[in-house]
Amino acid sequence: MSTPRTTVRRLPARGSYDTAVLKAILDEALVCHVGFLHEGQPFVIPTSYGRVGDVLYVHGSPASRMLRALKDGVPVCVTVTLLDGLVLARSAFHHSMNYRSAVLLGTAVEVADPAERDLALKAIVDHIVPGRWDSVRWPSEKELRGTLVLRLPIDEASAKIRTGPPVDDEEDYALPVWAGVLPFRTVTAAPIADPRLPGGTPVPDHVTAYARPGGAGAD
Amino acid sequence: MSTPRTTVRRLPARGSYDTAVLKAILDEALVCHVGFLHEGQPFVIPTSYGRVGDVLYVHGSPASRMLRALKDGVPVCVTVTLLDGLVLARSAFHHSMNYRSAVLLGTAVEVADPAERDLALKAIVDHIVPGRWDSVRWPSEKELRGTLVLRLPIDEASAKIRTGPPVDDEEDYALPVWAGVLPFRTVTAAPIADPRLPGGTPVPDHVTAYARPGGAGAD
Repeated sequence: MSTPRTTVRRLPARGSYDTAVLKAILDEALVCHVGFLHEGQPFVIPTSYGRVGDVLYVHGSPASRMLRALKDGVPVCVTVTLLDGLVLARSAFHHSMNYRSAVLLGTAVEVADPAERDLALKAIVDHIVPGRWDSVRWPSEKELRGTLVLRLPIDEASAKIRTGPPVDDEEDYALPVWAGVLPFRTVTAAPIADPRLPGGTPVPDHVTAYARPGGAGAD
Repeated sequence: MSTPRTTVRRLPARGSYDTAVLKAILDEALVCHVGFLHEGQPFVIPTSYGRVGDVLYVHGSPASRMLRALKDGVPVCVTVTLLDGLVLARSAFHHSMNYRSAVLLGTAVEVADPAERDLALKAIVDHIVPGRWDSVRWPSEKELRGTLVLRLPIDEASAKIRTGPPVDDEEDYALPVWAGVLPFRTVTAAPIADPRLPGGTPVPDHVTAYARPGGAGAD
């Protein structure tokens, strides 16, 4: 799965090419950043996504700059980053972050097959809230005409992970400076019902028991 | 500050070109995603950053693929995204996220002036943990030779913001589907002292009272 383009060169010990590690990062995060070239200028656009096996799907309006550029089959980079903590060293130089990131390279192509498109849209909705698809109104023909779905095979990719305490220069450990990790967690707050929701509408389990696969859950 | 390239075209009501809004997003977030072209392939790399007035700074090793590409003065896109919540509509089609994002375009250049470089490094460390710079060992000459700092003027940029409840098609409001927003918050957990820290080293206020400017703070 690794190629020279996805080989982690800086601090290679942080690199991982294990598919399970990569997919766990993709499944836990909610937003990816899609990089593409448009008239000579790189653009990086945040968007939601879904994964089915070894394929990543993104979607949007056929009128969007991003999707119009991508459906022409241009090279793309999709990056997903989870921030796990701040790494506070004794020296400014060794400050860092604990994170898990996945970088996917490839060429996105439009999904033309209706069955694959439906599967992709379900994957995108259920990626955001597992179990949601089965409880909502599915897309109409008109809505499907207004939705472009792109597929990116997960076959040229790498993950990069930093964990653990700061690593200082040996002579700096004697400095009277607090050092360690300040962990971050993403939590959900209480759901806010739509003001137009009739009173008494039960909050479904997929909302009350919401949790990301990696562990981020209710506060 | 807006140009045709940074004008928000999809759902323009979500676009903002207010400098204060843009800077607030940059100041609250911790990670930016830098997009650049390298041998015909777009790359999107997560990294930390700092802001001083109307300039964004990123730094890293002179050996990194990203910084080597950028110091040659190639066009770059820096995107920062804050995820505020999941927007659960009655229809699959109207599912969305509440978010605040900033997109900066431009050409990054290497900071050659030592005074500006020092200011930039302070800004990057203090962006991660406000007040940290003054309590740590500052970079040595050798470390400075191993650090490349790039500046990107914040002059071609836009912010995009979505807030509030889902917006469903009128006929869907009668559906017996729970709809609303599931808010996300990023919180810090208890700091984890470096195992090599001498017992009794006090935890400084900039760690115990840590909070992002936008409000993310201790759990």
